[in-house]
Amino acid sequence: MIVLDRLKAEVPDALRDPEARYLEEPRGRWQGQALAIVAPSSTAQVSRILRMSHDTGTPVVPYSGGTGLVGGQIKEGGDPPILLTMDRLSAVRAMDAQAGTMVVEAGAILQNVHEVAEAEGWIFPLTLASQGSARIGGLLATNAGGVNVLRYGNARDLVLGVEAVLADGTVINGLSPLRKNNMGYDLRHLLIGSEGTLGVITAATLRLFPTPQATGAAMMAVPSAQAALDLLRLAQGQIGEGISAFELMGKMGFDFLNEVGPQLRMPFDKAPEWCVLIDLGLSHGTPEEALEVLFSKAYEAGLVTDGVIAQSQAQRQDFWAIRENIPEANRRIGSISSHDISVPVASVPAFIAEAPGRLARINTFRINCFGHLGDGNLHYNVFPQPGRTRADHEQERVAIKTCVHDLVHEVGGSVSAEHGIGRLKVGDLETYGDPGKLVAMRAIKAALDPKNILNPGAVLRA
Amino acid sequence: MIVLDRLKAEVPDALRDPEARYLEEPRGRWQGQALAIVAPSSTAQVSRILRMSHDTGTPVVPYSGGTGLVGGQIKEGGDPPILLTMDRLSAVRAMDAQAGTMVVEAGAILQNVHEVAEAEGWIFPLTLASQGSARIGGLLATNAGGVNVLRYGNARDLVLGVEAVLADGTVINGLSPLRKNNMGYDLRHLLIGSEGTLGVITAATLRLFPTPQATGAAMMAVPSAQAALDLLRLAQGQIGEGISAFELMGKMGFDFLNEVGPQLRMPFDKAPEWCVLIDLGLSHGTPEEALEVLFSKAYEAGLVTDGVIAQSQAQRQDFWAIRENIPEANRRIGSISSHDISVPVASVPAFIAEAPGRLARINTFRINCFGHLGDGNLHYNVFPQPGRTRADHEQERVAIKTCVHDLVHEVGGSVSAEHGIGRLKVGDLETYGDPGKLVAMRAIKAALDPKNILNPGAVLRA
Repeated sequence: MIVLDRLKAEVPDALRDPEARYLEEPRGRWQGQALAIVAPSSTAQVSRILRMSHDTGTPVVPYSGGTGLVGGQIKEGGDPPILLTMDRLSAVRAMDAQAGTMVVEAGAILQNVHEVAEAEGWIFPLTLASQGSARIGGLLATNAGGVNVLRYGNARDLVLGVEAVLADGTVINGLSPLRKNNMGYDLRHLLIGSEGTLGVITAATLRLFPTPQATGAAMMAVPSAQAALDLLRLAQGQIGEGISAFELMGKMGFDFLNEVGPQLRMPFDKAPEWCVLIDLGLSHGTPEEALEVLFSKAYEAGLVTDGVIAQSQAQRQDFWAIRENIPEANRRIGSISSHDISVPVASVPAFIAEAPGRLARINTFRINCFGHLGDGNLHYNVFPQPGRTRADHEQERVAIKTCVHDLVHEVGGSVSAEHGIGRLKVGDLETYGDPGKLVAMRAIKAALDPKNILNPGAVLRA
Repeated sequence: MIVLDRLKAEVPDALRDPEARYLEEPRGRWQGQALAIVAPSSTAQVSRILRMSHDTGTPVVPYSGGTGLVGGQIKEGGDPPILLTMDRLSAVRAMDAQAGTMVVEAGAILQNVHEVAEAEGWIFPLTLASQGSARIGGLLATNAGGVNVLRYGNARDLVLGVEAVLADGTVINGLSPLRKNNMGYDLRHLLIGSEGTLGVITAATLRLFPTPQATGAAMMAVPSAQAALDLLRLAQGQIGEGISAFELMGKMGFDFLNEVGPQLRMPFDKAPEWCVLIDLGLSHGTPEEALEVLFSKAYEAGLVTDGVIAQSQAQRQDFWAIRENIPEANRRIGSISSHDISVPVASVPAFIAEAPGRLARINTFRINCFGHLGDGNLHYNVFPQPGRTRADHEQERVAIKTCVHDLVHEVGGSVSAEHGIGRLKVGDLETYGDPGKLVAMRAIKAALDPKNILNPGAVLRA
């Protein structure tokens, strides 16, 4: 292969021995392949590698933390790709503690970014379960969400600029930290969320935020999803921007944790039908008092039936451990079909009321519904009944997915809220996406990557 | 002309008699032309008109409020365009007072959008001097800034979705209000700020914000631009997100108002060398007290020499009238060269210290420097000495502009902060813009508008 010879000649230090971990993904649904695994140590090396790939028409799959759930990092069929792992390109290039900005390379692990920011008195608010292994490049490529979107926005809202390499090796130097800059088209937001199909993000200038003076949390049991939504409105009226997260959890999540672990300290003796985890970060007042006032008002209004306010940061961590381990419990149970969806916030209760009946026409299932209520973003995951396995329902997977996604579409929602399209949802994008938007997306893809070498088959059909 | 016949046949109600106002711009620098002036009343009509233009290769200039300062709405030479005015497409299509979102058409005037939001208990925070005539379409096409960017972001940050028509008439339906939606490339941000060269925005879903419980303002005299910046840091530490605006004004602005009007109530007997207008919107506490505390601390630290805290909303409006009328006074004096620039916030004092000396090598001028200090965004405008006119300096205009822009570029700033590129700064974008970005911009333009009919010559050379 010409391209292998050129890689050996031009970037010999970047070639890696094959390792299985680069070809797997968290749910074990797909198995990747690679012509070569290459770990560039500089933007210039990324540029050289892409130019070679472009010259020879070799596909490239950018690889970041490998935590994606929609197969964006896995190319199964067709020509084996160069797998471009960003783990040697992981420096913090600059930290401006006065302005509250940080320039990091794509391979930086999110947890490390948090620590660097916190050491200087700032926070970088992007927070999600996989933050110990997810890397900035992939988080931006997928416009990751997480638990703090309600307050701080999605990944794209936390980025002032990006540096990226286009398919032919052209470098875009866009790391300016300016807050106002109208020098031409906004390529930053086009690259963010394009899942490595329009360019490879090599570094980003991140916006940091002041550390809230006091943080706190509560778990509150609510009688229904509608009550949870009413509680959110009540909390927003009382506490406003101080609400950092507002997470909804159904009883099934607690049942799964009890059934398969991990074993955790639980706030309620008996798992409630629904509960919310409310996290506050205040610049005035004390979170415990604000949560007590909220609980009293909500109790009077019949919106909550029980509640525990964290009395220490350790207890707050316990609450979060429950929320963050629900995906792990789900993994151990083994879902038949998982759905990362969003609907208009006001439609969440109606969606939750309607979906189980529709699914029951297919078969009887266990449903674990949880997520970021404040964003209308639910993880709506369907599991077998006890004693059955997901293999027993293999032939129903398409019907389940179609049932859920059709309902989401009916209420004006999105069938990809925060995980992206990857390869899993290419058909969904064609089915539910706006036709005019798809025309424009294909035109842009063809213009920026005419040989279709960048993550082919992700987002758009290859 | 085939296209005129088709317009008469297909959209007869949209044809307008020629009116001079569509062919002028605020500074009187350019004179436009038009083959026809067309006022579509629906997105479907915009689509039909663009399809005709695309079929016949006829240029189209989208026209919104006409307040742009960089010639984006004016095509002087070459083939006369269809001027597409959005003033019949100005409805508020929907207002969701629960969710805090509003769907408005491109022709809606910003002031009207403010009023509709306020009637429902919300604010739409985009605020600028021309809000009585500027329309949403143009404000988004140019990613307008204004005085509240420090707190709420630029125009693009206030938009959840856009509906737009591409060059060939394809409609993009992107008005979804979802906060989390990763269904493909982000065309919203690509269209916002593209100045009508990639598509015509016909409607947008706007984000509204809770009305602050209490507002207030102060004017504080500061000994230097560095002191103003230190005062900003002090205020951010004390008041945080409650600072809605932090505007810097130089003595020359007051001198101009005294010289040519409008006549306004002034807060200081003698205009200070520099002063700042601080505007607060608080959810807790009273603005007057917060400003008093800030003033005392700042006075002790030597950061302020004098100050007036507004004791009423009328007095607050008086302060803002000064700030908002500086552009009008500038217009009456007649600038030789005006610069809408941004630099890293920390570099503002150095820039202000350095620029006058460099300009003095060209000639002696009066400089009116004012702007949005919190965003590093300065309006740096150069005027003749008393008794001279801008015509006397016509031959120095290029040298002045180059002098200012070169210095901006040296300190890592932008030569277009909030006004856009239009036709005025096409050469600046080529000179100071990132070459890789320009490659990508040209590729995207050619892909979405292969016949170059959409606002040709704006942003990119025709």
